Amino acid sequence: MNNFGRIFRVTIFGESHGECVGVTIDGCPAGLPLSAEDFLVDIERRKGGVQRGTTPRKEDDVPLFKSGLFNGHTTGAPLTILFENKNTRSGDYEKHRATPRPGHADFTAHAKYGGFEDFRGGGHFSGRLTVCLVAVGVVAKKLLKGINVASTILEIGGEADLEKGLDKAIEAKDSIGGIVECRVNGLPVGLGEHFFDSVESLLAHAVFAIPAVKGVEFGAGFAAARMFGVEHNDAIEDETGKTRTNHAGGIVGGITNGNELVYRVAIKPTSSTPKEQNTWNSETNQVEPFSVKGRHDLCIALRVPVILEAVTAMVLADLMLLAQRIKPVMER
Amino acid sequence: MNNFGRIFRVTIFGESHGECVGVTIDGCPAGLPLSAEDFLVDIERRKGGVQRGTTPRKEDDVPLFKSGLFNGHTTGAPLTILFENKNTRSGDYEKHRATPRPGHADFTAHAKYGGFEDFRGGGHFSGRLTVCLVAVGVVAKKLLKGINVASTILEIGGEADLEKGLDKAIEAKDSIGGIVECRVNGLPVGLGEHFFDSVESLLAHAVFAIPAVKGVEFGAGFAAARMFGVEHNDAIEDETGKTRTNHAGGIVGGITNGNELVYRVAIKPTSSTPKEQNTWNSETNQVEPFSVKGRHDLCIALRVPVILEAVTAMVLADLMLLAQRIKPVMER
Amino acid sequence: MNNFGRIFRVTIFGESHGECVGVTIDGCPAGLPLSAEDFLVDIERRKGGVQRGTTPRKEDDVPLFKSGLFNGHTTGAPLTILFENKNTRSGDYEKHRATPRPGHADFTAHAKYGGFEDFRGGGHFSGRLTVCLVAVGVVAKKLLKGINVASTILEIGGEADLEKGLDKAIEAKDSIGGIVECRVNGLPVGLGEHFFDSVESLLAHAVFAIPAVKGVEFGAGFAAARMFGVEHNDAIEDETGKTRTNHAGGIVGGITNGNELVYRVAIKPTSSTPKEQNTWNSETNQVEPFSVKGRHDLCIALRVPVILEAVTAMVLADLMLLAQRIKPVMER
Amino acid sequence: MNNFGRIFRVTIFGESHGECVGVTIDGCPAGLPLSAEDFLVDIERRKGGVQRGTTPRKEDDVPLFKSGLFNGHTTGAPLTILFENKNTRSGDYEKHRATPRPGHADFTAHAKYGGFEDFRGGGHFSGRLTVCLVAVGVVAKKLLKGINVASTILEIGGEADLEKGLDKAIEAKDSIGGIVECRVNGLPVGLGEHFFDSVESLLAHAVFAIPAVKGVEFGAGFAAARMFGVEHNDAIEDETGKTRTNHAGGIVGGITNGNELVYRVAIKPTSSTPKEQNTWNSETNQVEPFSVKGRHDLCIALRVPVILEAVTAMVLADLMLLAQRIKPVMER
Repeated sequence: MNNFGRIFRVTIFGESHGECVGVTIDGCPAGLPLSAEDFLVDIERRKGGVQRGTTPRKEDDVPLFKSGLFNGHTTGAPLTILFENKNTRSGDYEKHRATPRPGHADFTAHAKYGGFEDFRGGGHFSGRLTVCLVAVGVVAKKLLKGINVASTILEIGGEADLEKGLDKAIEAKDSIGGIVECRVNGLPVGLGEHFFDSVESLLAHAVFAIPAVKGVEFGAGFAAARMFGVEHNDAIEDETGKTRTNHAGGIVGGITNGNELVYRVAIKPTSSTPKEQNTWNSETNQVEPFSVKGRHDLCIALRVPVILEAVTAMVLADLMLLAQRIKPVMER
Repeated sequence: MNNFGRIFRVTIFGESHGECVGVTIDGCPAGLPLSAEDFLVDIERRKGGVQRGTTPRKEDDVPLFKSGLFNGHTTGAPLTILFENKNTRSGDYEKHRATPRPGHADFTAHAKYGGFEDFRGGGHFSGRLTVCLVAVGVVAKKLLKGINVASTILEIGGEADLEKGLDKAIEAKDSIGGIVECRVNGLPVGLGEHFFDSVESLLAHAVFAIPAVKGVEFGAGFAAARMFGVEHNDAIEDETGKTRTNHAGGIVGGITNGNELVYRVAIKPTSSTPKEQNTWNSETNQVEPFSVKGRHDLCIALRVPVILEAVTAMVLADLMLLAQRIKPVMER
Repeated sequence: MNNFGRIFRVTIFGESHGECVGVTIDGCPAGLPLSAEDFLVDIERRKGGVQRGTTPRKEDDVPLFKSGLFNGHTTGAPLTILFENKNTRSGDYEKHRATPRPGHADFTAHAKYGGFEDFRGGGHFSGRLTVCLVAVGVVAKKLLKGINVASTILEIGGEADLEKGLDKAIEAKDSIGGIVECRVNGLPVGLGEHFFDSVESLLAHAVFAIPAVKGVEFGAGFAAARMFGVEHNDAIEDETGKTRTNHAGGIVGGITNGNELVYRVAIKPTSSTPKEQNTWNSETNQVEPFSVKGRHDLCIALRVPVILEAVTAMVLADLMLLAQRIKPVMER
Repeated sequence: MNNFGRIFRVTIFGESHGECVGVTIDGCPAGLPLSAEDFLVDIERRKGGVQRGTTPRKEDDVPLFKSGLFNGHTTGAPLTILFENKNTRSGDYEKHRATPRPGHADFTAHAKYGGFEDFRGGGHFSGRLTVCLVAVGVVAKKLLKGINVASTILEIGGEADLEKGLDKAIEAKDSIGGIVECRVNGLPVGLGEHFFDSVESLLAHAVFAIPAVKGVEFGAGFAAARMFGVEHNDAIEDETGKTRTNHAGGIVGGITNGNELVYRVAIKPTSSTPKEQNTWNSETNQVEPFSVKGRHDLCIALRVPVILEAVTAMVLADLMLLAQRIKPVMER
């Protein structure tokens, strides 16, 4: 399913080497001021070609508003935004069809869609679609007035010093993984729905739509598995719910507790490594050495912070819209 | 939301100290043989009072079929199963209402539901509801013929030796966390839906509905963040998609690749620890020492394996039902 | 699917001759006062055995609250209500299995569920489940403070005089159909969601879940097909949107316009008629004369008003909860 | 919500006088051959400017495939199709903003979206969006191999002779309503889901998304309300479920019974009539005479048949994809 969200509902479409990628946001309230300029900063943050370790492929990535915007404001009708794919070199991919790239969706997509999938550059499975997530994030952040969503890279290749981590990859002529953290301040107490729609459930669901994410942890996360209860429990200090420590990462019982929301994701190394690998060749039915051509990021984690912010804002905007529905009805 | 699933749709209800907890499964195919005996083993595995480190509270936990079962088979109509709460001691909880228990949903539930929540024993937020998940798992596993879902505890309090981990907790007179792994064999290639409904997304969503889960990782997981690409990528070896290594944990591009599905969850220490803690008292508006009474597990991770299997089977049954819809239509 | 609603989500289960029928309401706001007495009037209105033309079967139909209610108020957790089936005579049905009753779901249910369906008394397809709808309606009406939902029977067997219509049926020793109207006053302008979730779409969807409904029309309805534009258009008279006429039935562009909501449903004659009919016998593979035994309503339309009110209130409660979410977010 | 469907999920967006209207179909199976030519006939059938009584506004309405199509086949990824709005004359509408057109969504949209709605030509509420439904219908019909979906106009302005009905409108210089019927042959027994997702529920839901529909009836429909049971019941004649009569319209208990699916919709007269009307003017706060300018259909019912086929095919494609999921799982 390319849908996500109950009130603020997002539908994503497009392929890496098709004409465009795009997104429709249904349920965005009317009256939100919105312009192409609002998207510049976050789209720039996502782009490759700026930092060492990211792909030289660049797209202008100007948001093309196709519906839902009128006189500079959202209308309440579905907001559709396209991003053209201008800079595609499909030739890079077609000749490699017999050799499914290790770590990519080539093999699984072929099996699932019976060979009808658009295999160029990963098609619908490409990281290219994350530009749509970033666009959703821009809109969602504007809805989340007074709430700050910020991501940072914690480590690259196990190094807290990012330069050192990248140097390891450049030196090894190989791609490398990393860990990215997201923190949200200013959230009210009470977001999240019981049982299946805990804040953790919804964020994790959305986060695993980002290609290359292989793990997620909230607050103390995996470290909590090695703690005693008295150590892990956050003592509540006042009527706002402020806690002395924040091992829970701002979520208790699946509901925000008014403290900072903190979580981290593990990003695997870019599947497309410059190194030679082995893979099965469907024409020869043999395992053969294989080299990925094309332009790729050495460290995809470098692009993840703004995408992680985007899916976080998307989930929280939906929860805010859900949460505020209850009181007014009872108080009428 | 207490709903989960697109075809095999589960609705969960009930409170820890109410009359019962229960579950409705909508979309279970007709004709599945089902009896109370099918539930015995998994419900027994979930029960406390058996191992050291689990709560002495016991419920008979006989599944009461209220709908959807006829002549020993599912009918295709919604299957509703209740579990009575026989062994409740609400008095344990009522007097502590002014002091929200650290690590529990007391504070967040109160804020969210304006004091109307059933606060006895955690109410709807209680781990008691996981008996419903286990029941769902029993049904889902029966649908997953030829597919094996199995969970094990990897570590308790950082110790691979479970006894040693429990001893640490008993000695410290404190609760303790752990890590539980789930492995699934026999899955076809191609389960999972593109973009938002990757297998990781759906499993993570469901898994964070289990109380006390604070992290999830697939395959190499967080370790992948410290790996090089050539190290992490799993080389495909033949037309079945079998890979030499399995760092992906059986999922590539969000789709099962025919290898073993492997993932792990981090379980925080039980929030109810025998140790004295501090918490804010809403009557005195002061932070005060506080002791949890009642019967509680020292290590909730001990109960998690069967619950983790259950939500895994629930997600996979839904994906199996979804996946098998496509070919027949095209082939008519 | 046995689910309906986006915020106020209803799940229905049970069979006519099983142990019980029931309903879970997820998303009902916390703090709504609720007691068994609230249900008495509407459940009484639905019961047979009171008026001429309704079945002598009676159930006590006391609502059994299984979850979501605490100290006389909803808790915000799922509200589950059961109704026991005390007065079942399954023997009436079993011997007729080879002869699918004309107008009933016997044949279609058998084909769909492969013979595993609970065939006793229509099983899950029985009108018995409408007691659950009535219960939902009671809760929904309490949420709709200041909004009045009222249904009346417009005609029985083509007669505006109900007694005359019933006399026709009694005289003919046959069942008979009718038309029921629902009117809602006090609705705000602006309920309904664009494109697929117009108020008409949602009401019609819910209404066709009531067994025996074969048509629905809003405002002038089918008569509108025979009108000129100038005749049909309702002239707006002031800033509240009040119109001189109400051919639109209170809905324009799928959105409530602040005028009275008016719509009607066509109810077919009860399928179980005392008259002899023909049907195919699966054992003899012949068409044979056939008589329905058991207790049945001559005119099911007599029971429909309270059920129609219930589904109307259910849909409107959901739309009210949805509508009130937008402004607060923008105004924060 | 602009979403519809569980498996074959449709999202619609765009405005009458914006840049384009469009649709995304998620869940369309991979491998369906599809080209722009497949759309020609149905899009031509929908166009105005051909028959007497339809608007002279024409759009080329060439489907622009933006995603989900590769080498002439669907890929299994979301299929997005745009239709450009080339022939817009917004000037017609802007000056009338103070006078909400009777019968249009002007007033309700303004109230709902606080004045931020795109009011030009009805914006997102315009009949222009039905070109997207027609496109969905083209895809859905291709999935429904061996199933024939056909609509005809039964009457215009109460006349079975269409020319006579149109003459009435032309003579009266007024718009006029009509009745359109849809019949489907070749459906299997067993489509439709119990309780809330009866075939009638889903079709009615979708049908009321078509602007100007004010009523729907299945089989005998409203006439059933005036029938006796023995008259209405369709006698089953053989093991295929074939019935002697078809008052049920091919649906019993909400499930298809293998007979022809038959249903009708009531279309109100086009709201934009050439006749002078009265409406409230928000600037003068007075009721004033008012004339609709712009190009409009005298009888919108003339365009409805192909749209009704489209939504019918959309619903049935979704039900076919749902229905075929069950057997394979049980038979593995």
